Amino acid sequence: MLGTILHGPGDVRCEEVPEPKILLPTDAIIRLSASCICGSDLWPYRGLNDTSQPMAMGHEYCGIVEAVGQDVKTVRPGQFVVGSFCISDNTCPHCRFGFQSSCEKREFMTGAQAPLARVPLADGTLVATAELPSDDLIPSLLATSDVLGTGWYAADAARVQPGSTVVVVGDGAVGLMGVLAAKQKGAARIIAMSRHKTRQDLALEFGATDIVSERGDAGIARIKAMTNSVGADAVLECVGTKESMTQAIKCARPGAMIGYVGVPHGVELDGQELFFSQTGMLGGPAPVRRFLPHLIELVLQRKINPGKVFDLTLPLADVAEGYRAMDERRAIKTLLRVQ
Amino acid sequence: MLGTILHGPGDVRCEEVPEPKILLPTDAIIRLSASCICGSDLWPYRGLNDTSQPMAMGHEYCGIVEAVGQDVKTVRPGQFVVGSFCISDNTCPHCRFGFQSSCEKREFMTGAQAPLARVPLADGTLVATAELPSDDLIPSLLATSDVLGTGWYAADAARVQPGSTVVVVGDGAVGLMGVLAAKQKGAARIIAMSRHKTRQDLALEFGATDIVSERGDAGIARIKAMTNSVGADAVLECVGTKESMTQAIKCARPGAMIGYVGVPHGVELDGQELFFSQTGMLGGPAPVRRFLPHLIELVLQRKINPGKVFDLTLPLADVAEGYRAMDERRAIKTLLRVQ
Repeated sequence: MLGTILHGPGDVRCEEVPEPKILLPTDAIIRLSASCICGSDLWPYRGLNDTSQPMAMGHEYCGIVEAVGQDVKTVRPGQFVVGSFCISDNTCPHCRFGFQSSCEKREFMTGAQAPLARVPLADGTLVATAELPSDDLIPSLLATSDVLGTGWYAADAARVQPGSTVVVVGDGAVGLMGVLAAKQKGAARIIAMSRHKTRQDLALEFGATDIVSERGDAGIARIKAMTNSVGADAVLECVGTKESMTQAIKCARPGAMIGYVGVPHGVELDGQELFFSQTGMLGGPAPVRRFLPHLIELVLQRKINPGKVFDLTLPLADVAEGYRAMDERRAIKTLLRVQ
Repeated sequence: MLGTILHGPGDVRCEEVPEPKILLPTDAIIRLSASCICGSDLWPYRGLNDTSQPMAMGHEYCGIVEAVGQDVKTVRPGQFVVGSFCISDNTCPHCRFGFQSSCEKREFMTGAQAPLARVPLADGTLVATAELPSDDLIPSLLATSDVLGTGWYAADAARVQPGSTVVVVGDGAVGLMGVLAAKQKGAARIIAMSRHKTRQDLALEFGATDIVSERGDAGIARIKAMTNSVGADAVLECVGTKESMTQAIKCARPGAMIGYVGVPHGVELDGQELFFSQTGMLGGPAPVRRFLPHLIELVLQRKINPGKVFDLTLPLADVAEGYRAMDERRAIKTLLRVQ
């Protein structure tokens, strides 16, 4: 079959790869209804991670179960499933605590930018729907697998409450999903920090009540001015740079939590500054599995439409263009037709 | 009257000072039932803070209202009151959010190691009891003013729940109060990290179920061994050094919160490490005012006895010995008889 392999910085190819097989009795093979490119795929693409070995790309997925190993009990061939980008058994103490992304048996999904993929620990990782969903829901169901689940976790970690004033730092796909999540959690005011018209428009569509295009000190001053010098009740940090983290901390009111889901690069936090600002912090790889049943249900009931975050759709053969478009910020997020 | 003045590192004196007066219509003057020395008083005493000007010491207090300014409405002369070490109006947005220690009008109490003290913003800061309490409750009521309130905040910020496994890092007075707070919040297991017999004994009396005397990597290994490699559900960091913070983070399970109340000195947190550990953090000066009514009630009902943390009682005239005893760790916390 065709699959997506990263051979080095900037060198991603759609090429012939072996079909995945059941390797362990807890595996499932799924036929993907669609796949997509994640912002985090751009790190190795940009040479920020090690790329000395060819890498099978893709970790967001949904589709039809093709085969299962002999120990798999909760899903069966023919069912439609969504899984998290974090493989988890969903039974270990970390999973039961709701932090499946730190599962004792955690693996990270790979090879999902392809028509077929192997999902380890299928019982713990996959959530099946009662019926096959309509085709038009596929992009939104695919989004729950990582990008929506991650934005949702940011809002959850930031403890967004009904009536909260929320600031979202970052207008990438995850930040936009954070806006959607804050809206669903009943936030009264959702301030999206964005300088790009298309992303501002999408933020407004997902529930943002205000757009702030300033950054840095000017952005912080705007947020303070908009909140009577108080700051936001909850802040979603969806970038991961030193600048974005500083902005997040300085937009937060004392006692607010920052849910941070952008993997920090070059971020050092001064303990004493954090102490006196009384800013709470909780981040990490999102435990998407915790939220999946709820998010899938919201999509099936057509209460949310996170699939709108995909503003470019390409066939798998054009995956390289999908990476380029996201790298050059011509696209927010690329959906791949893989069948 | 006599009061306590720090003239420079190691040079604290009981000497003649002017009696406090009502300076603003929102002030109260209180006659202290007792006072005490705080661990944080040792910073300037040790020369870690600026001591170029003489400083009136003391910020923990309870006593009888002697006089009030003309705008004070909620307390009146003759009432017994306890106040927080943080002066707050209890009406600003930060106060209403429960973070009175970041009140827009915040001041820090001073001059309370004396028979009389001026309390600004009396209506917001002081909590009066319905009746005059018995004398034997005074040490415990005094403790609510800062040391218990701070330990309580650590447990609150760490989100200790009924059934939680809690680790308390630091066996100073605040750490011991953190043990008491965790017990009151229903923690099933409270592991106090302490190497000192008298403090271990007090921790056990306040509700610790286990003592770990190892520190650093050995201490972390012990906690992991005691929790099936999972880590603690909640960690109270009551020291503020790089070593204690590292220990706290590494004893926490993914998704756990660390409530940190030791003012960080020389603590830098690596964003990416914190991210992948999925450790939550919330700290800062304790919003004691939020907890005061509840804590006072627990003391009046004799459900808690935080006053046991005072293991040395001295007359005000011997305040210098009180500082020395705490500095040399001969005493956990010194109560001062000021009348």
